[in-house]
Amino acid sequence: MENFIYNVPTKIAFGKGQIRMLPEFVKEYGKKVLLVYGGGSIKRTGIYGEAVKLLSENGIFYTELSGVEPNPQIATVRKGIEICKKEQIEVLVPIGGGSTIDCAKAIAVGVFYDGDAWDIVKNNELITDALPIVSVLTVAATGSEMDSSSVISNAAECDKAEINADILYPKCSILDPSYTFTVPAYQTAAGVADIMSHIFEYYFSGMDIPDIQKDMMDAVLKVCVHYGPIAVKEPDNEKARANLMWAASWAINGFIACGNFSSWPCHAMEYQLTNQYHVTHGHGMAIIDAAWMEHILSERTLADFTRYADAVFGITGKDPYETARTAIEKTKAVYEEMGLTLTLRSIGASDPGDIPKMAEKAVTEFGLDDAGEMSLTISDAAQIYESCY
Amino acid sequence: MENFIYNVPTKIAFGKGQIRMLPEFVKEYGKKVLLVYGGGSIKRTGIYGEAVKLLSENGIFYTELSGVEPNPQIATVRKGIEICKKEQIEVLVPIGGGSTIDCAKAIAVGVFYDGDAWDIVKNNELITDALPIVSVLTVAATGSEMDSSSVISNAAECDKAEINADILYPKCSILDPSYTFTVPAYQTAAGVADIMSHIFEYYFSGMDIPDIQKDMMDAVLKVCVHYGPIAVKEPDNEKARANLMWAASWAINGFIACGNFSSWPCHAMEYQLTNQYHVTHGHGMAIIDAAWMEHILSERTLADFTRYADAVFGITGKDPYETARTAIEKTKAVYEEMGLTLTLRSIGASDPGDIPKMAEKAVTEFGLDDAGEMSLTISDAAQIYESCY
Repeated sequence: MENFIYNVPTKIAFGKGQIRMLPEFVKEYGKKVLLVYGGGSIKRTGIYGEAVKLLSENGIFYTELSGVEPNPQIATVRKGIEICKKEQIEVLVPIGGGSTIDCAKAIAVGVFYDGDAWDIVKNNELITDALPIVSVLTVAATGSEMDSSSVISNAAECDKAEINADILYPKCSILDPSYTFTVPAYQTAAGVADIMSHIFEYYFSGMDIPDIQKDMMDAVLKVCVHYGPIAVKEPDNEKARANLMWAASWAINGFIACGNFSSWPCHAMEYQLTNQYHVTHGHGMAIIDAAWMEHILSERTLADFTRYADAVFGITGKDPYETARTAIEKTKAVYEEMGLTLTLRSIGASDPGDIPKMAEKAVTEFGLDDAGEMSLTISDAAQIYESCY
Repeated sequence: MENFIYNVPTKIAFGKGQIRMLPEFVKEYGKKVLLVYGGGSIKRTGIYGEAVKLLSENGIFYTELSGVEPNPQIATVRKGIEICKKEQIEVLVPIGGGSTIDCAKAIAVGVFYDGDAWDIVKNNELITDALPIVSVLTVAATGSEMDSSSVISNAAECDKAEINADILYPKCSILDPSYTFTVPAYQTAAGVADIMSHIFEYYFSGMDIPDIQKDMMDAVLKVCVHYGPIAVKEPDNEKARANLMWAASWAINGFIACGNFSSWPCHAMEYQLTNQYHVTHGHGMAIIDAAWMEHILSERTLADFTRYADAVFGITGKDPYETARTAIEKTKAVYEEMGLTLTLRSIGASDPGDIPKMAEKAVTEFGLDDAGEMSLTISDAAQIYESCY
């Protein structure tokens, strides 16, 4: 078993009405808040109103940064940093999904850096400190509410990069599943595929990880395949939404990575789809994950595939390859049941000539060919793209 | 689903040689350390030597409190508090099992209280602050390395009580499974029974908890029934020791309690056995848990029992009561395979007249008759004691 460090300090208030904890959580770190949010949906749903009422009633000063994009832009991060410096903000309160929380994380570290915030995104070594974050989650998907990373885009430079640092774990996050009742079916489905993708990246490593980590991977996947289709059909099904929300946080907070390894090949391949075809990340993940699983099924991964088949779908059988293939088919069926299409054509691809450059970019930029037994060559990546064209 | 707060901030360095992290972990909080330990075993195994070498090499001052008892005494806690005040200690470093860490926790809060430390044990409201704790674990059992409680005994007053406060979570804990290779077979078995007992207290609540919590309960139990007997037979089996050590922390750190409820009836009943017959806590837990499971098997708990049978032992069947009973028998067989006897006589009970007073004390002192559907009356407790006499 490999050595590991487990360090997930985020405090969670989970359940209906937990927004009431907001003032207490904020006050532990300060009394001057920057609210960070996207469009107007949190105003329509009343979450915004509830949050600012609680802050005001408790003598907490707040100002706002709205308009955070679905792929948060460095320009918005810069705006946030400016406000923080001007207003001497002490606590960041993002209210929204992963993009909003990611934006707040970049602001949090940018405040302590004198140069341009994009420098930090490209070079995490420049991080010295971070403002504390208390997040209010409204979408179950990325896990940003309980993890240490942030993905920021730079439209001007056609670039996108990640910040990773322990200091980025939100201090506290409020997870009220009822806030996700209004998430549209497509976004719900994409969110579920995103959660699953965080597990799949680690599932077939073949490493000797602790048993409770293995079981937790199965547990998260079972939640997704069972409650995902339910949440799509019955958006206000509390049990489905609650299980998805909590599983999303545990899929990527660092627990399941303990003692395990991944080069995140599917995310590397999906990022090319988002760049090229502007598909929603989770939808892109479903397409790539299904095609990738078919590609990596081999003697090396067979035991992990039969475990997956049995633990997640209850499929056992005499022929392990048949069992594995049935599990992959079942996985596709879950995506499709949630309304996700599984071909590149379906998300707007029309030129197979895109494939070679996407394959090269994914493999070389993310070092996918340098991941030991789990390596993918440019030719592997191209085959995967082709197989789901 | 019930609302909950999840708050487990302890950082873990897991694996062989992770003691190397000690100076870094300590320095985050200070440079004056009180080492807390029990008998001389950590000197024989070399852990002590390694720890003090690392501290010295890194310019960290340390002094010592040795002789912590298996049931840590308030007198020892008082001694520790005195040293801390005199030497202006900044960080506590317990090296040992649950008792040693529990003792350090009581010292940590006692330093900030002007009166006698026993006041705090009896009234947790008196806690104002705590010294940071960096623990080095040598026994897989109590979970104190990643939880927020401490049990302290008072020999002079024939009393024993618990401190519970979020501030008691160790800041960091070092978990090196090889440190447990020298734990004797009986202590190993008792430790495994202790880990299982932490899950059983929550397992049959019938509450609508998140699915990942349910699966984690099963995961921890599977680790115990599978690796427990292996660790007893092959004390230096790294995989068994590592899985048990990591599962022990997760059995009680707060994760599986999220959204669940327990009045801890089996612990209340076991405390009477330790008081009366001086049995090792984990051994007492095995006796009580087995008898209690037989007692509470009913329509209310049946679904949880059949889940347990299937998930942990792979037992399914047409008659759910038979399935449940088979699972209980399998549980007993695991305890016995590890060398634990399952009767009160075997631990020195010779007067059945002890039972009524033990039953009354367990139920009244711990309010076991005020736990809704999970309540036990004095008569229930007496029947449980009688059934394993």
